[in-house]
Amino acid sequence: MLTLFGDLESGNVHKVQLLLHRLEVPYRRVDVSQSRGDTRRPEFLSLNPIGKVPALMLDDGDVISESGAILYLFGAPTALWPAGDRARAEVLRWMFFEQYSHEPALAVLRYLRRFAGRPAAPDRLQELAAAAARALRAMETQLRAQPWIARDCPTLADYALYPYTRWADEAEVDLAPYPAVTRWLEAFESLPRFLPLRTDGAVRAISLAAYAAERA
Amino acid sequence: MLTLFGDLESGNVHKVQLLLHRLEVPYRRVDVSQSRGDTRRPEFLSLNPIGKVPALMLDDGDVISESGAILYLFGAPTALWPAGDRARAEVLRWMFFEQYSHEPALAVLRYLRRFAGRPAAPDRLQELAAAAARALRAMETQLRAQPWIARDCPTLADYALYPYTRWADEAEVDLAPYPAVTRWLEAFESLPRFLPLRTDGAVRAISLAAYAAERA
Repeated sequence: MLTLFGDLESGNVHKVQLLLHRLEVPYRRVDVSQSRGDTRRPEFLSLNPIGKVPALMLDDGDVISESGAILYLFGAPTALWPAGDRARAEVLRWMFFEQYSHEPALAVLRYLRRFAGRPAAPDRLQELAAAAARALRAMETQLRAQPWIARDCPTLADYALYPYTRWADEAEVDLAPYPAVTRWLEAFESLPRFLPLRTDGAVRAISLAAYAAERA
Repeated sequence: MLTLFGDLESGNVHKVQLLLHRLEVPYRRVDVSQSRGDTRRPEFLSLNPIGKVPALMLDDGDVISESGAILYLFGAPTALWPAGDRARAEVLRWMFFEQYSHEPALAVLRYLRRFAGRPAAPDRLQELAAAAARALRAMETQLRAQPWIARDCPTLADYALYPYTRWADEAEVDLAPYPAVTRWLEAFESLPRFLPLRTDGAVRAISLAAYAAERA
């Protein structure tokens, strides 16, 4: 069975859970948390030298990481990865936008406001809020012109963008100025086999310590 | 003819120049600079709502952006995009790593040390230097095990990672602790039709003002 490394507070991990659940692919989960420091432990770095979650161990023991790469690996044989290089490039465009411009604003703001032990510098918060507004304006422009972010039907890019957009409230970012984004979030939640945030789609979950003991 | 929007100081733009030059695809370039503020002007946002360079206008007037998506669009029909979903996911893994973990450390450090008008906060520089070291350690681990970042032959992931790794000196990051990375940089520079940093591969370059006048 597949083993997914990651926790329920990571939107990047939730993207993978959303897709595996949608595709009815069974997996177990090892609870690895970045904010707890697990991702920098040697036992995790030996599995994924990049030191980030999600990482996914395949049935042959090989490990793949980066949420976008995992979405591709499982989504490529489905309609969520459309036909044609131009359409596929558009899906990747919004997946890269998410990792480069959207997540570093919305997810980092959420982290600083919800999980960081000490208060963040005001100018850092202001800079991140401005970047979050730019990312949401780009989504709003796109979603006023078409129902889904990359195409007229759902693609892997929608799966990539859902978690941290829905968690805007925890980043203290108001979505009221972005009605097309709000409509899109609701449409996403109506897709088949939708999995809400912080819901575990795994068959079972174990700790990193229990996993290490099992491998020893 | 294709129109590439971007400047010679952007490593993200240089990735696209590297690939188009390698593939002998002719294009002209409109000089759009993020540090000059061009990417937030309405005339640029109407072309690319994401507000980043590179952006590329295709022959039909359609615009694609995000360096990774453009690399895919032109690289997909070549050997730089290998066969098989698992191999392709590995290429995407390192392309997402670059945009999510590598560029935000190395390119931002370079920006703060070379282009920013005012001195950066010391704890911000320290945090970025630590992130750069983590990214380079991940590359070093990978490049000790194999000659190219995603496979045993060059792929789009090597094109994505080259510019900001080579510019480590401008970020004041010493590559001496990473001999496999240094060897890989030299191997990359020996590939056919390599285009050095800050070299323009465009047939001609015009200003954004001249481009706007042409379109009016």
